Amino acid sequence: MKSERIILGIDPGTSIMGFGIIKVVGNSMELVVLTELMLSKTDDHYLKLKYIFERIVQLIDTYHPDEIAIEAPFFGKNVQSMLKLGRAQGVAMAAGLSRQIPIVEYSPKKIKMSITGNGNASKEQVAKMLQQLLKLKELPIHLDATDGLAAAVCHFYNSGKVTSDKNYTGWKAFITQNPEKLSK
Amino acid sequence: MKSERIILGIDPGTSIMGFGIIKVVGNSMELVVLTELMLSKTDDHYLKLKYIFERIVQLIDTYHPDEIAIEAPFFGKNVQSMLKLGRAQGVAMAAGLSRQIPIVEYSPKKIKMSITGNGNASKEQVAKMLQQLLKLKELPIHLDATDGLAAAVCHFYNSGKVTSDKNYTGWKAFITQNPEKLSK
Repeated sequence: MKSERIILGIDPGTSIMGFGIIKVVGNSMELVVLTELMLSKTDDHYLKLKYIFERIVQLIDTYHPDEIAIEAPFFGKNVQSMLKLGRAQGVAMAAGLSRQIPIVEYSPKKIKMSITGNGNASKEQVAKMLQQLLKLKELPIHLDATDGLAAAVCHFYNSGKVTSDKNYTGWKAFITQNPEKLSK
Repeated sequence: MKSERIILGIDPGTSIMGFGIIKVVGNSMELVVLTELMLSKTDDHYLKLKYIFERIVQLIDTYHPDEIAIEAPFFGKNVQSMLKLGRAQGVAMAAGLSRQIPIVEYSPKKIKMSITGNGNASKEQVAKMLQQLLKLKELPIHLDATDGLAAAVCHFYNSGKVTSDKNYTGWKAFITQNPEKLSK
């Protein structure tokens, strides 16, 4: 593991997508970027997916993250909204895949727990804690951006330990050990 | 519209993904490729998504399709499987997006109707009709590959008319007319 790492955190909502990028040096972290993609402006589902893909590729090519942490809810909602959410997540993941960047998923509960110590913390509580941890002067209007940041910070706290909900960072090792799995 | 077009059809299942590529010249079509990606071999959801993305990019870079037609079911199943299916679809779409290729979605019913004249036709009936239409010597063991081909043929029959369930081919025109929408 490099001593300096860039982590891109993504909260893949279908109306607002939040992104937070942190730089980790040793045991400390600092904010690089906190931003969001407003998707509610367009009704065209396909255009939304296109925007998501392009924005994430742009963030990757600008900030060269070593890892991507993604908030991945697995519960509730109806089948229609789950399909849409799945597509948004799939496109976000594909942006990482297209640049060969390992992706780790965390549940909202896990993220809240990692940041605040309480798996049922509110968005506001998570945002306030992030503000303290990263010495942010102010919080964005839409807290979805901080949700992306929360995923990145959660990954920082959990990297090295096998505590994520689904840790896919091991796939490079998996491929190295199982090269025949690559021939499709 | 070019007089010669290549259409890539995709049936994005989560255990088998089917692909069919046809070349359309004027009013006639011929088969270019009929293939599939077996996803049941791996349990790793992320590896599956990676395989899907890479295979579709590979097909695009090899056969240079002008359009992608995708079978997109919107019904049934539970939220968990819909999320997985959504991710598979999202990754497939992102592969097209990454190469700037227009994507058109068709429902299974629409595809069956276009090929056989019966929206409730069986997989076998669709496959048999495709075999006739494209003069295939034999059918693949897994009919999912022919489902991808069916999407491509459905798109051929429906292109030019605004009869698809969701026609996204217009987005280039949309962007041309609304350039400000591109600045995010």
